[in-house]
Amino acid sequence: MSTRVSSPPFGDRLAAAADRRGTPLVLGLDPDPARLWPGITPSGDDPAATSLGLQAALAHEGTRPGALAALAVYEHCRQVIEATAHSCVAVKLQVASFERLGPAGWQTLHAVAQLVRDADLLLIADAKRGDIDVTAESYAAALFDGTETPWGWVPGLGADAVTVNPLMGHDAIQPFLDRARAVGGGIFVLVRTSNPGAADFQEQRLASGEPLWQRIAGQVAALDSGKGALADAGAVCGATVPERVAELRQLMPRAPFLLPGVGAQGGTIDGLRAAFAPGLGGGLVTVSRGLVRAHETSGDHDAAAAAASAARDLRDQCLRAAA
Amino acid sequence: MSTRVSSPPFGDRLAAAADRRGTPLVLGLDPDPARLWPGITPSGDDPAATSLGLQAALAHEGTRPGALAALAVYEHCRQVIEATAHSCVAVKLQVASFERLGPAGWQTLHAVAQLVRDADLLLIADAKRGDIDVTAESYAAALFDGTETPWGWVPGLGADAVTVNPLMGHDAIQPFLDRARAVGGGIFVLVRTSNPGAADFQEQRLASGEPLWQRIAGQVAALDSGKGALADAGAVCGATVPERVAELRQLMPRAPFLLPGVGAQGGTIDGLRAAFAPGLGGGLVTVSRGLVRAHETSGDHDAAAAAASAARDLRDQCLRAAA
Repeated sequence: MSTRVSSPPFGDRLAAAADRRGTPLVLGLDPDPARLWPGITPSGDDPAATSLGLQAALAHEGTRPGALAALAVYEHCRQVIEATAHSCVAVKLQVASFERLGPAGWQTLHAVAQLVRDADLLLIADAKRGDIDVTAESYAAALFDGTETPWGWVPGLGADAVTVNPLMGHDAIQPFLDRARAVGGGIFVLVRTSNPGAADFQEQRLASGEPLWQRIAGQVAALDSGKGALADAGAVCGATVPERVAELRQLMPRAPFLLPGVGAQGGTIDGLRAAFAPGLGGGLVTVSRGLVRAHETSGDHDAAAAAASAARDLRDQCLRAAA
Repeated sequence: MSTRVSSPPFGDRLAAAADRRGTPLVLGLDPDPARLWPGITPSGDDPAATSLGLQAALAHEGTRPGALAALAVYEHCRQVIEATAHSCVAVKLQVASFERLGPAGWQTLHAVAQLVRDADLLLIADAKRGDIDVTAESYAAALFDGTETPWGWVPGLGADAVTVNPLMGHDAIQPFLDRARAVGGGIFVLVRTSNPGAADFQEQRLASGEPLWQRIAGQVAALDSGKGALADAGAVCGATVPERVAELRQLMPRAPFLLPGVGAQGGTIDGLRAAFAPGLGGGLVTVSRGLVRAHETSGDHDAAAAAASAARDLRDQCLRAAA
């Protein structure tokens, strides 16, 4: 059975959470098993092995590396969330980082999602899925609430929002939004990404005169019901192109923006003022390496302290930009 | 440790397999737990429960529905592959259908991949992933060979090819192709999909005069090394738009085409002649419901017999179109 409970719309929940916690900062988690925080030594005796259901995988030579890596990733994520939660409104989980650990990684993804909820943070599943029809519905079920089967209810990841790739068009967006709305969730549609390759297609000018990103933005804007504090259909906009962020805010006045690219990719928070026009929750500045690897650049031996300090600093930068 | 062995390029492997097996038909598996073949009754006593590592999940109330559904999906896929392998060159696994069953689904995805290899069929992971940098590398590792970690080698799905979403540009395509080439694998880039929403963005005419799909096709064509029987960078082209398939063949003369949309979506194999210009392996006609639900339309009580018959018929249609 579904345990669905009626939930307020995502836009209201997001706006309230950002205001209540006083931050629009999003912790991005994309753990690389080869670059976790120091001192993490997973073993089969780890109590988490039981709670993650990894005992069977740990007992077999072929699956043991994946289970140990998953245990290590779990502990790493636990420590990073604990160190930075005070300055964040949400955690963005990079689904790929867990998928590469196989079945054990998927179990860990679910366990880390629970850590995020326990920390009273919103959960954004950065999956960039894009497909249609029953396939889109399956992805949405996997990432949001779950699936009814003849053998009972299979719970999904429980994400509050997911990232969606719009290339296939409206029928690749709507199934995600429908499922999101049913559970008080939201979507972030890729509109103008932060990478150099965004120039290849997203920046192409159409015969109608507008670039492709503008056409995509128009479709996202049209999904806004106009109700609540913010729309539940948001946009991914690269923080590396602040001029685009300002233009996109004009086109999508109430859409929450998910803003990757600060730090490692060269974006600055100061350039993102326009994103905050509809409120603090309108500009979700998502930072991964700038938090998790803060100790590498600061030379601090205490990774948690360095991450905590970087989180406070990034939060303060956001608040200045939003002021 | 990686167990990588040197493998011939994907284009050669695909062309040889299609010629040897005498078919370009691809079985699409996107199992819906509520619509599996009749007579499938999963239980914890099922020997597959052990081989799939689902005992622990079966023992807990919260995870038992997912494990039972996964067992049922596994048995369904086993029967469908057994019934249709004779007329197919590859199996396309819709990753979403397994993801929605949670960790147990991911274990089942790996187990079904092994069934595909055991049947001497190529494995296409229809994941439509699109991301950049280390994230793209993680997805590629998850779907192709695997990941080296401090705790040992974590095996990937072992796909021969994966579907890739190009919206983010060349830096979202290249990491998948790099990993593919390292293992003798290939990619299928979404160029012109079979759904109505393809008109929203893919069919938009650019200021330069060409539609977006043509621009994407040009980028895929440029990835062809010119060596071997077929390129290892292929394209997803909807069988619902035969005129596009012919145009795309002009633009990408050596790219293998993955052609969904026959049957349920209204495409016909007869319209796909141009796809086969570079050989049988150039036109991978992928059929899901037309095979798995053949008994529903034919009224046949034996789902396997109906699927086998439909597979032979579809294969023969392909051979006539390719002649």
